[in-house]
Amino acid sequence: MSFKLTKQSEKSKARRGEFVTAHGVIKTPFFMPIATKAAVKTLSTADMEKLGAQILLSNTYHLYLRPGMDVIESYKGLHNFMSWGKPILTDSGGYQVFSLSKMRKITEEGAEFASHIDGSKHMLTPELSMKVQQTLGSDIVMAFDECTPPDYTEDQLDESIARTTRWAKRCKESFEHNLDSSNNPNAQLFGINQGATSESRRTAHAKELVKIGFDGYAIGGLSVGEPFDEACKVVEKLHEVLPEDKPRYFMGGAKPHEIVAYVKRGVDMMDCVIPTRNARHGLMYRFLHDDLDKEDFYETVHITNEKFKDDKTPLLQSHGVIETGFDEELERYTLGYVRHLFSVDEMLAYRLITLINVRFYLELMERIRTSIDASSL
Amino acid sequence: MSFKLTKQSEKSKARRGEFVTAHGVIKTPFFMPIATKAAVKTLSTADMEKLGAQILLSNTYHLYLRPGMDVIESYKGLHNFMSWGKPILTDSGGYQVFSLSKMRKITEEGAEFASHIDGSKHMLTPELSMKVQQTLGSDIVMAFDECTPPDYTEDQLDESIARTTRWAKRCKESFEHNLDSSNNPNAQLFGINQGATSESRRTAHAKELVKIGFDGYAIGGLSVGEPFDEACKVVEKLHEVLPEDKPRYFMGGAKPHEIVAYVKRGVDMMDCVIPTRNARHGLMYRFLHDDLDKEDFYETVHITNEKFKDDKTPLLQSHGVIETGFDEELERYTLGYVRHLFSVDEMLAYRLITLINVRFYLELMERIRTSIDASSL
Repeated sequence: MSFKLTKQSEKSKARRGEFVTAHGVIKTPFFMPIATKAAVKTLSTADMEKLGAQILLSNTYHLYLRPGMDVIESYKGLHNFMSWGKPILTDSGGYQVFSLSKMRKITEEGAEFASHIDGSKHMLTPELSMKVQQTLGSDIVMAFDECTPPDYTEDQLDESIARTTRWAKRCKESFEHNLDSSNNPNAQLFGINQGATSESRRTAHAKELVKIGFDGYAIGGLSVGEPFDEACKVVEKLHEVLPEDKPRYFMGGAKPHEIVAYVKRGVDMMDCVIPTRNARHGLMYRFLHDDLDKEDFYETVHITNEKFKDDKTPLLQSHGVIETGFDEELERYTLGYVRHLFSVDEMLAYRLITLINVRFYLELMERIRTSIDASSL
Repeated sequence: MSFKLTKQSEKSKARRGEFVTAHGVIKTPFFMPIATKAAVKTLSTADMEKLGAQILLSNTYHLYLRPGMDVIESYKGLHNFMSWGKPILTDSGGYQVFSLSKMRKITEEGAEFASHIDGSKHMLTPELSMKVQQTLGSDIVMAFDECTPPDYTEDQLDESIARTTRWAKRCKESFEHNLDSSNNPNAQLFGINQGATSESRRTAHAKELVKIGFDGYAIGGLSVGEPFDEACKVVEKLHEVLPEDKPRYFMGGAKPHEIVAYVKRGVDMMDCVIPTRNARHGLMYRFLHDDLDKEDFYETVHITNEKFKDDKTPLLQSHGVIETGFDEELERYTLGYVRHLFSVDEMLAYRLITLINVRFYLELMERIRTSIDASSL
């Protein structure tokens, strides 16, 4: 398991590499489509292969509650359960505990929460998060952290970051202890950096994490409403502190032009619900031109708009940057037809636009990689 | 355009044939998956090709209301709109007017109704039904009839059947008048037989329809709650009256063993919402053995049952009777995984079971055709 940088752009901090995992090599920078509950919404893992996805991201919190770890253990992990042979990254469950559950209480031990499904009480600790992710057989296991809310006082923020550091240590110990008997003995563990938009807190925390030592480093607690340029500054600052030879993961993702911005600041990995969630609202992404350095390189199309009712433009217009097993299918359906499918609430509508949007994000990453190779980004 | 019988079973009235349409030859007997609103629920027409469907059935009533005929005309018909190059049969709209709309009033002219979407008033006449179906460019156009409700008195029934006969004549005249300028100059027109479960009314009406002369004959007004053996008797009786050299269509379909029963009584065409609608409720069809003559040749599996939570049985177990482009995908997902998808309400669940069920019905028809060729049915 290793991370190898293959190219450093001469124009920015963007970097190309290869990230070796227990389920194959991933070309970096890369994007992770989100299979929250063991499926990318509307799509199968066979579909994800046809689209050329390199990796999927699944949710510890959701899978812990349903189907539960007894079922996952009987399958010997999530790869078998959802029939996906490529890498999987799982989040730690922390973010969902803090954002979804009705009740939560944070102690040194962990986070007590009530399930959003049935109100049942659970306690998620660093050790349980490791246990669950290692039962899932995840290739990239995320440390259990607290995503600090924007209303924390300075003191609460410091306290939370210090606890996240202590939790990170416990995660590493527990992860290593479980490794050989887990469903993925070659899993890797990532630490998660916190510190809101404070550059000094961010760098101090990053140094603590590097001291503990992880296989990769994630930037957490951003994309939660802060101004975009502040997120960029945090990423820039962390570039100076995080080890060059480890992958960097910007968590909780971004719009297409934001992805470009983070990559230019040295980020290797991203995830985002945007392509799949927006698809279900009829919002579709399309490239406008090749210059990723300009923010207007893409547009969003509200396909439910009446003006498309007899528009014969195909969903996919040929680009030639990537080829996927769905291109032919996406070229045969027109905006007018898919607008109709939305208007009569046919599930096929959500599926077709999800395919288009995931394909767009995957093509975006390929365009980014090619641009870095050419030092044009 | 023709219908050619290629084999008469020595064991029953079942028959094999080839039905030539403007969009290709269909092997009979055949089943029509239902693309109500220009899409088989959860599936694309590309998916239907991969499954090996020979023909799709779409709804005049629904498509007339949405997207409306201006949109369909701009596409020069439904084939282009939904990107489907094989045959399409459209119903007349009559059944939906009688079952879906809030208000309806039948006169000699036609049926006045209020849209189930916005309450807007419309009048569907034999002439408008032809016009709409010929704008859709349907290959098999259905005459506009009244599906007689079970609470009709004898007099109302007679009156309704006589009117359906008069409407059938108007349909034929209008259909022929439009033909050359329509979106499908090689379309064929089917008459629809009514008469509830009265054998004398059924045969008398069938003779009237044959006198008018149609490209095929449909048996309407059944599968509406009457005992199965009464439906069988009607089909048997009609076998004696309907011309041997024209296709016979049992409308509004049937469970798998009922399909076999109708085929054995000389039926060539069927449709049914069962495989797609039941799929969305987690009901899945599986073959148990090869003997179609025994009613228990299949089973229904309620995949949402907790007992399947860690069941590693693949959705599709190899049969070798037909091969479809989805077999590999359906063999890789297990009952336990798909049960989970249902429990967390992932749309993929509906899609996977729809694929399985449509595939089942298509395989059933292939098994039926093979059995007729061997005179074993």
